[in-house]
Amino acid sequence: MEPFKIYILGCGSALPTLRHQPSSQIVEIRGKMMMVDCGEGTQILLRRSRIAFTRICNVFISHLHGDHCLGLIGMISTFGLLNRQAPLHVYAPGYYETLFQAQMEMFCGGLGYDVIFHPIDTKRMQVIYEDRSLTVETIPLEHRIPCAGFLFREKQGMPHIKREMIDFYKIPISQINNIKNGADWTDEDGNIVPNSCLVKRADPVRSYAYCSDTRYMPNLHELIKGVNVLYHECTYDKSMKKNACIYYHSTAEDAGRIAAEAGVGTLLLGHYSARYDDEDVLLQEARKVFPNAQLTGENMVIDVK
Amino acid sequence: MEPFKIYILGCGSALPTLRHQPSSQIVEIRGKMMMVDCGEGTQILLRRSRIAFTRICNVFISHLHGDHCLGLIGMISTFGLLNRQAPLHVYAPGYYETLFQAQMEMFCGGLGYDVIFHPIDTKRMQVIYEDRSLTVETIPLEHRIPCAGFLFREKQGMPHIKREMIDFYKIPISQINNIKNGADWTDEDGNIVPNSCLVKRADPVRSYAYCSDTRYMPNLHELIKGVNVLYHECTYDKSMKKNACIYYHSTAEDAGRIAAEAGVGTLLLGHYSARYDDEDVLLQEARKVFPNAQLTGENMVIDVK
Repeated sequence: MEPFKIYILGCGSALPTLRHQPSSQIVEIRGKMMMVDCGEGTQILLRRSRIAFTRICNVFISHLHGDHCLGLIGMISTFGLLNRQAPLHVYAPGYYETLFQAQMEMFCGGLGYDVIFHPIDTKRMQVIYEDRSLTVETIPLEHRIPCAGFLFREKQGMPHIKREMIDFYKIPISQINNIKNGADWTDEDGNIVPNSCLVKRADPVRSYAYCSDTRYMPNLHELIKGVNVLYHECTYDKSMKKNACIYYHSTAEDAGRIAAEAGVGTLLLGHYSARYDDEDVLLQEARKVFPNAQLTGENMVIDVK
Repeated sequence: MEPFKIYILGCGSALPTLRHQPSSQIVEIRGKMMMVDCGEGTQILLRRSRIAFTRICNVFISHLHGDHCLGLIGMISTFGLLNRQAPLHVYAPGYYETLFQAQMEMFCGGLGYDVIFHPIDTKRMQVIYEDRSLTVETIPLEHRIPCAGFLFREKQGMPHIKREMIDFYKIPISQINNIKNGADWTDEDGNIVPNSCLVKRADPVRSYAYCSDTRYMPNLHELIKGVNVLYHECTYDKSMKKNACIYYHSTAEDAGRIAAEAGVGTLLLGHYSARYDDEDVLLQEARKVFPNAQLTGENMVIDVK
């Protein structure tokens, strides 16, 4: 299977600590690298990760709290210093556009590549990016300011050819695409070989949902039903429920509940409040509701399967 | 003597590396902490340095290249999360004000303290800050965009009382201030004790000049004559003189020349281009012109004397 990986660059929350960096991730799908959120210092974390800067063509910003986007302008400027030429697409809540362009003008003059801003509507679920192999959709979230999560979904690939059958029937290369597309084969004697004998099932479609920042949303599970991997914020443990309500954040129990309701494969926890020296309390709380939960940490790489 | 120290938070240049952070320093004079420049990630470096966030009341921004100021908004926001109440004064080139206020509005809503922007004129030398014990002056520099260095100068303190003489002549406490201010003393028999017998010389006045970023300026030495410590950028070695000209930066030789011409005490080198894995080449080059040069590095603390 082609790689589908999540690289955690930072998984802390607003108050910086010496243990966690602000939010940023790279999602790699079939060789494409996409960034989700870009907190202050992301460019340094990216450099440490040894991911090639040039491979990142899309940056998705969930919302305009500093810990999710203050690294963007510096990173764009640095890409320029590194002689990037490929365009960079930035997807962010639409009301950022004016300020973004003013920042670009002040700090990123004379860039040798194009930066294209795509305003996103955080209020509805919508495909905002699509290519041959994947789609990215917004997930409307409920935070203190407009905020969207992102759902990365592979497109259904072609079935795999059964090499030995192709050889046995001496099917020419020119016909392979037809067969992948479902055609049967008629041999020299006029016998029809059904398509199902010639191909193996395509790889299952994989998907990843990024949900940060948000309070618990009773209907969220409908939008992310059955994703393989869900990253859901858990800023607090449940004893801090009151803070979660005030600041529109989730508890670890909330995150577990969403994962259970949506029937996801794996739950990744992150966006920890700076008050936790050890996030095990959050992990245990989430696992009580959804056993297949795990903590994220800087430099962690997760395979989506 | 009261402390006069420079804490190096970052001393790299525009392109971030794993060895150096972008520009930022703390200047401590008689218990006051002032920040000079605030590149991306400064708030993390500040936290690592264990300098109390709350003690910083003034931030001086030399110019609006990202590596000197992109950490400002995140730091201001974090100060708010940490419940800062004291006002923070930001001094920066005046044309930043509109964008600064727009960034503040977007990223720093609901701060519990005041942030006061002071536009500085980078074209002339001028006192921009003054209190009982020190002044800060702008130093006009020559860079690709408006840019000012900063000259921190202690004010002349009072002379020190000679304790034993005060005791010998039984001079009452109420007269000490007069004597510090230069008064003679008349004893019970009418004899005049000259002031010079009663006091020792005040501590010498110390000064620190921060000059980054700039090309070599033939007249700069007149503005910083005899400072105790000079921080001067040296982005390149002299074999890269052409780049220094194009980008309005200095070579290490230039930095040494300025230090020699100005007759400073110590030259601190910084703002190294990312191309140097080892800055010793820069140090040796500067020392040929001005022997008392030293490299700065992250976490270094320099005593000004």
